[in-house]
Amino acid sequence: MTAAPDAPSPHVPSAEPLATHPAASGAGNTATLTISCPDRPGIVAAVSQFLHRHGANIIHSDQHSTDPHALESGGSTFFMRMEFHLGGLDQTGDAFAAAFARDVAGPLNMDWHLSYAARPKRMALLVSRYDHCFLDLLWRKRRGELNVEIPLVISNHEDLRRDAEMFGLPFHVVPVTRENKPRAEAEQVRLMREAGVDFAVLARYMQILSGNFLQAFGRPVINIHHSFLPAFIGANPYRAAFTRGVKLIGATSHYVTEDLDAGPIIAQDVVPVTHRDTPESLVRVGRDVERQVLARAVKAHVEDRVLVHGNKTVVF
Amino acid sequence: MTAAPDAPSPHVPSAEPLATHPAASGAGNTATLTISCPDRPGIVAAVSQFLHRHGANIIHSDQHSTDPHALESGGSTFFMRMEFHLGGLDQTGDAFAAAFARDVAGPLNMDWHLSYAARPKRMALLVSRYDHCFLDLLWRKRRGELNVEIPLVISNHEDLRRDAEMFGLPFHVVPVTRENKPRAEAEQVRLMREAGVDFAVLARYMQILSGNFLQAFGRPVINIHHSFLPAFIGANPYRAAFTRGVKLIGATSHYVTEDLDAGPIIAQDVVPVTHRDTPESLVRVGRDVERQVLARAVKAHVEDRVLVHGNKTVVF
Amino acid sequence: MTAAPDAPSPHVPSAEPLATHPAASGAGNTATLTISCPDRPGIVAAVSQFLHRHGANIIHSDQHSTDPHALESGGSTFFMRMEFHLGGLDQTGDAFAAAFARDVAGPLNMDWHLSYAARPKRMALLVSRYDHCFLDLLWRKRRGELNVEIPLVISNHEDLRRDAEMFGLPFHVVPVTRENKPRAEAEQVRLMREAGVDFAVLARYMQILSGNFLQAFGRPVINIHHSFLPAFIGANPYRAAFTRGVKLIGATSHYVTEDLDAGPIIAQDVVPVTHRDTPESLVRVGRDVERQVLARAVKAHVEDRVLVHGNKTVVF
Amino acid sequence: MTAAPDAPSPHVPSAEPLATHPAASGAGNTATLTISCPDRPGIVAAVSQFLHRHGANIIHSDQHSTDPHALESGGSTFFMRMEFHLGGLDQTGDAFAAAFARDVAGPLNMDWHLSYAARPKRMALLVSRYDHCFLDLLWRKRRGELNVEIPLVISNHEDLRRDAEMFGLPFHVVPVTRENKPRAEAEQVRLMREAGVDFAVLARYMQILSGNFLQAFGRPVINIHHSFLPAFIGANPYRAAFTRGVKLIGATSHYVTEDLDAGPIIAQDVVPVTHRDTPESLVRVGRDVERQVLARAVKAHVEDRVLVHGNKTVVF
Repeated sequence: MTAAPDAPSPHVPSAEPLATHPAASGAGNTATLTISCPDRPGIVAAVSQFLHRHGANIIHSDQHSTDPHALESGGSTFFMRMEFHLGGLDQTGDAFAAAFARDVAGPLNMDWHLSYAARPKRMALLVSRYDHCFLDLLWRKRRGELNVEIPLVISNHEDLRRDAEMFGLPFHVVPVTRENKPRAEAEQVRLMREAGVDFAVLARYMQILSGNFLQAFGRPVINIHHSFLPAFIGANPYRAAFTRGVKLIGATSHYVTEDLDAGPIIAQDVVPVTHRDTPESLVRVGRDVERQVLARAVKAHVEDRVLVHGNKTVVF
Repeated sequence: MTAAPDAPSPHVPSAEPLATHPAASGAGNTATLTISCPDRPGIVAAVSQFLHRHGANIIHSDQHSTDPHALESGGSTFFMRMEFHLGGLDQTGDAFAAAFARDVAGPLNMDWHLSYAARPKRMALLVSRYDHCFLDLLWRKRRGELNVEIPLVISNHEDLRRDAEMFGLPFHVVPVTRENKPRAEAEQVRLMREAGVDFAVLARYMQILSGNFLQAFGRPVINIHHSFLPAFIGANPYRAAFTRGVKLIGATSHYVTEDLDAGPIIAQDVVPVTHRDTPESLVRVGRDVERQVLARAVKAHVEDRVLVHGNKTVVF
Repeated sequence: MTAAPDAPSPHVPSAEPLATHPAASGAGNTATLTISCPDRPGIVAAVSQFLHRHGANIIHSDQHSTDPHALESGGSTFFMRMEFHLGGLDQTGDAFAAAFARDVAGPLNMDWHLSYAARPKRMALLVSRYDHCFLDLLWRKRRGELNVEIPLVISNHEDLRRDAEMFGLPFHVVPVTRENKPRAEAEQVRLMREAGVDFAVLARYMQILSGNFLQAFGRPVINIHHSFLPAFIGANPYRAAFTRGVKLIGATSHYVTEDLDAGPIIAQDVVPVTHRDTPESLVRVGRDVERQVLARAVKAHVEDRVLVHGNKTVVF
Repeated sequence: MTAAPDAPSPHVPSAEPLATHPAASGAGNTATLTISCPDRPGIVAAVSQFLHRHGANIIHSDQHSTDPHALESGGSTFFMRMEFHLGGLDQTGDAFAAAFARDVAGPLNMDWHLSYAARPKRMALLVSRYDHCFLDLLWRKRRGELNVEIPLVISNHEDLRRDAEMFGLPFHVVPVTRENKPRAEAEQVRLMREAGVDFAVLARYMQILSGNFLQAFGRPVINIHHSFLPAFIGANPYRAAFTRGVKLIGATSHYVTEDLDAGPIIAQDVVPVTHRDTPESLVRVGRDVERQVLARAVKAHVEDRVLVHGNKTVVF
């Protein structure tokens, strides 16, 4: 997928190590193909036929045209996600991918991505002092809800070390100050790249990432913001919500771009509040919706359900 | 679609008058194809290729396998809904349908249905004294939310005549008593069949339909029940909800079968209530959720989004 | 209640015609007392004792302190709403109100308001071309959900005349252009004042009211804005929501002040949307939440459940 | 509070050790008084005056009459919860309680309960193998959301020992079989009574408690049932929900009585599901709503917000 000009692409670029995918066998083995390309007639037919010919049985299929009525004029973009069984694949994954590139993706000018359930994505967690989003993700992984590996946790504080270690996770503290920020970010990126991280999640990490960080990391970063964006961008959204007297508070999970709190939104939700709520009770109530929304967004990303289109997302 | 043994099929049978569909032309002209069949590899490929070859451009596509892992063993059923532009159709609709039956539906043993946006479904409304669901459907039609024609309204009371006539709708009163019920139902069916009705909606119609009615009518009937089924089946669900002390009340829209309140569920929703609510306030609060849920179910049916599978629904 | 400096008070000022209230008798006769005052110990005791002594039986009671921990320091404001049966009142309403002013409200420095269920508030509706909020309010009144009188409807267009007249309501067209706006607003205010209107509702009225209008009218005006404020203030919020790619759209009902879309919020709600939604479908989906939120706000206002505190509301 | 005849009272009986309550001082020191009694005029006045006279400043007050219109005929029951600052109390708590009993509760025939924020309730957790409700409650306690002490955890399995011990909690395994059930329950009750437990929470504890257990324990027991009761009472509600084809699944937290899944409901919530959900995914989705609903119910109980009325609850 081509990176948007002003944002690191939330999809792993084509350097995806297809060569190291697991053997395409096993009854439970599935793969997911995501596609975006200029819309035109026949795309579903071409892809579904290719998969059928190569012995892949489609389990789920979703598609979206941004403007089906503009199909003739070239004004529509097409998105598709297909999940299929690898059981009947007549070739190794490499040959399958090469054939798809040659026969379908090339002619139809596709950005595409292929991932295998048996090769879980590798997720880095960046945290500060709040534990709720962090622990919720660790639990969900433990329960089998999130098909990820977590090679490391990075924090600018010591507070959550014990929680991380309880779950058997390496915990790296990289203090961040105004002065050392460039060096600290370089160290964070180095740690994540060495760990072979596919994407990072800011689980209430309380530092703003610089454009340098995003470019050097070059992979998707998911954030949870504690407001219903675009309301209450920036610091202290619960205080701002209290001051404005809103009757709902929310949380928004989005891909991080250089524009603060302005990246593509993946998931949002709200909960009702009343005049009885204080800034403190909003924080408490908000924790529940923050962790739910972040978990939903991470799960969607992990399952290749999120495709980015400009500054928006398609979430299948 | 083959009717389930114990219920009238919610889909118009294959007697669908394809011959009278509108000319397959016009920029906004779309058709919807729904399919159910034994699951097997290659169905998406076969259908999408057929459509592509006949110049139909797919706008939306949804599919569902009841058990993709049982695909090999024949234990899975496949459902699909494809909405497409007719613009490029190289044949009249009749020939298109005949070709589809011969080339795709026959070999794959499909139950299928094809409908045209330009030929709106014909909906009968059955009402008693409550106006909220009734008026909400009429408004939605007036606003263009529901692509239906309403050839008639049938009631067992005079109360809603003025409302029906305000919207220009023929209003038939067929009183129903214990004694005359068979004759009354026969009259209702006659009125609907003469009016060429495709499906009926019970908008808080306060009589139970007999199996004879359902068989004689032979088309889908949608009901709204004022509880979260299967809780509080039968009469007076708000009173029962009050007595049980539930903290949510709901509404359920379902296809009518001979088993009271037990047909395939199309849509459900709930609203919170508290100890302050009385049976009377539950009725009032419930009206809002009843009309929303019924409207959602009717809209899904009208747009061919609902496929029935045994006593359950697939809602695309 | 003292008007906030920058906004007409959403409560009818103390000119409330107590002398003309209905006879304080009849089993179903209830009154509602709302209070705001500097917080201090003993307020509930003082009010409940007064009511008890005068034979009023409390049905519901709600109270709120903005900061109970600041009670000693004078930093807290107290709000209360008491609904009570008039059955046992030992005096006429006038004497009762006078006694309350003298014995309780005066000493405790209260802003207060007393209203009688038997004297429904008089509501003016201002509309343009959209019918959904307008018709929903008329229905709710017809169903007995809103205890209001509607002496007139004012519009800048002819479109909704037939709907208004169906419900037996006087319909006044006052066209508004950039040039005639001051005169048009003066005419609107004149019509409402002559009709003895207590408050006005902008049911998707598509003109911004000037400060002059608000001051000349001098009574609460309730608006419905088609976004989750403070997101998407101003024109075309659905278009803005589409462009930003939010996953929820909302509606906000608030008292109108001179600051556009910035008055005290009474009610808000949201509904989920997806990448499949177009600006047009957002408008359609939004209608349902707009009418629900406006109805909830109007009902709360009509039942004296909304007390204003600065730019925020207490909604009991 | 007098126990209902057919159920252990969810309120701690009058043996509440008032003598050991903490010194009634300290800025943050609050107490909560809950009352139920035959409804009659003047109760609010009597209670609020008593509190005022004894220097207690009311922070929050809620009241409910089951049928205010039946007040004269004696057909209404009155419930009240008052939270107040102890700061100004002119007496020790003991004298305060004795005075309240003598001056107010006795004459008005009240069941009442007084609790002090500085003396947290003592909660026993009963668990089996599922961790989600269990860990969520432990977290919330750690975060300060639940003002409880947890003197022990009892399980019929070893699985959650490590989690319990991570939070520093004593973990007792009491295996339960058909044969040993009476002895096992006696042991559970003994452990809880020795630990001075005020109430117990079944955090997905997978055994049905006998009437003997409930009577011997004699204190409230809160359960979480994984359905929207009264739908799907008994075992395997997610499987039953799947089979029925509902479009929402829910969870219900209630006080345990001898009637399975039929005790007074404290909290309920639902989440939408679709035809794509399997029995397994319903279990996964259900976990989120189970833990939220149980946490909400436990928090309400801990804060003395739940009053039982027959088989229903008033939740302030």
